[in-house]
Amino acid sequence: MLYLVGLGLSDETDITVKGLEVVKKASRVYLEAYTSILLVNQEVLESYYGRPVVLADREMVESNSDEILRDAQTEDVAFLVVGDPFGATTHTDLVLRARELEIPVRTVPNASIMSGIGAAGLQLYNFGQTVSMVFFTDNWRPSSFYDRVKENRDIGLHTLVLLDIKVKEQSMENMARGRKIYEPPRYMTVGQCATQMLEVEEDRKEGAYGPDSLAIGAARVGGKTEKFVAGTLKELCEQDEVLGAPLHSMVLLGRRTHELEHEYVREFAVDKETWDRMWKAEYGKQQ
Amino acid sequence: MLYLVGLGLSDETDITVKGLEVVKKASRVYLEAYTSILLVNQEVLESYYGRPVVLADREMVESNSDEILRDAQTEDVAFLVVGDPFGATTHTDLVLRARELEIPVRTVPNASIMSGIGAAGLQLYNFGQTVSMVFFTDNWRPSSFYDRVKENRDIGLHTLVLLDIKVKEQSMENMARGRKIYEPPRYMTVGQCATQMLEVEEDRKEGAYGPDSLAIGAARVGGKTEKFVAGTLKELCEQDEVLGAPLHSMVLLGRRTHELEHEYVREFAVDKETWDRMWKAEYGKQQ
Repeated sequence: MLYLVGLGLSDETDITVKGLEVVKKASRVYLEAYTSILLVNQEVLESYYGRPVVLADREMVESNSDEILRDAQTEDVAFLVVGDPFGATTHTDLVLRARELEIPVRTVPNASIMSGIGAAGLQLYNFGQTVSMVFFTDNWRPSSFYDRVKENRDIGLHTLVLLDIKVKEQSMENMARGRKIYEPPRYMTVGQCATQMLEVEEDRKEGAYGPDSLAIGAARVGGKTEKFVAGTLKELCEQDEVLGAPLHSMVLLGRRTHELEHEYVREFAVDKETWDRMWKAEYGKQQ
Repeated sequence: MLYLVGLGLSDETDITVKGLEVVKKASRVYLEAYTSILLVNQEVLESYYGRPVVLADREMVESNSDEILRDAQTEDVAFLVVGDPFGATTHTDLVLRARELEIPVRTVPNASIMSGIGAAGLQLYNFGQTVSMVFFTDNWRPSSFYDRVKENRDIGLHTLVLLDIKVKEQSMENMARGRKIYEPPRYMTVGQCATQMLEVEEDRKEGAYGPDSLAIGAARVGGKTEKFVAGTLKELCEQDEVLGAPLHSMVLLGRRTHELEHEYVREFAVDKETWDRMWKAEYGKQQ
């Protein structure tokens, strides 16, 4: 049996009791750690589980899945995924490969950022499609997120923006020379995300949002040091120190908001007067 | 401290290790059991936790929250919610009341149907806003869900449809006579949902979807007997026996689908030829 086990969002104790039982009895345990990360590292997990964990990088999962699935017709293999197992496409692929090999698959669900973001105080049924924001470079500034944000905003919905992480990346030079030397991991901050969003609006000028649009920056959702900061996009460009360490994510508000959401989120506002003024002008409209 | 603890989707072992630690040390433990239910009952939870659990009905949570929050400035109170604590508005209200009383609040996230539905094989970032479907009566057939489904479908997104549950409802007669006698619980099935959806389309005729639109029926997501059935809305009107016991939910597909989604979901199709034909005609279009 292949078990896809969600680890939740924060630390080693966010695994479910059911998931922990699977991990303790499986023949081999893999940890997918390139689409998201926990706030604790591999050693903490190994010590907590009392057994070794193999880090599965993108290459292993995408090109060498047969090693992960080896003998899973008769043995139990646990494949651990931060958040919920079906947050990322890659794992769908792994299940399809298991089906081909006639390996039974079972999933142990857990919190995903897509549900966990509810802790910010916005109602989950007011969210539209989720988008991803990648690190811009001088000559690569993909803005397909913009059209999706605009679609959500046009019908009044919130947009969850998931921020890029770069783990096990090679520099251009090391890649060219075939040297397996990796750069330190990088995690996009809310400030970087807000800045890139405003740059794209400057280019596109279609009014999907603006410097005064309200948003919420979230850090370490589900963890003991979880932190939310609410404000205009312009204000959120400068809140990285307040938010602190990774992981960050962001929500751009839609106009179809409820008074309860206003009251709940106001507690996190950088400036409550600005928050109230912008809310009154643009939000709380059902149509 | 008030702890809002998510229980996940299925049985007593879906609680997280962190959540279980909270439950074991709290002074009082409440279980919210009217917005959703686990697939096990209160007695199973009490025996698993080794302690009593107070069922918190809607009236208690909405009108008598001070009893739940009593002494939580100095004691730990655990408020258990099926799925993730922030799936429903009511719990936002409870947090706001705790803030007024200067009670610290901490959340233990868990899987919600909004993330757990990913196990059906559809990618979560292709979902638009979530809607709810209530039991129609002769003179109450609320169709506001229809406009939201249409908004999602117009931009190509999937719609998760959450199905009504009726727990602790009084008959009109018993309510009128002030008798606290409750009807047996009722859980909407995928078949009832699909039938009501087609009735509303018959009335509205705005083409938000039709009898041939593809959808997925889901039963007991996250549980050992989890079951998915994929087909046209017309086909799903007749699949309740295949799906089996509650809880059910449904996803109406949007056209912005990925080939991997097609391949994954096809496995669950009532009729693979119909599935392939409809998919080819209507889906897999990015714009």
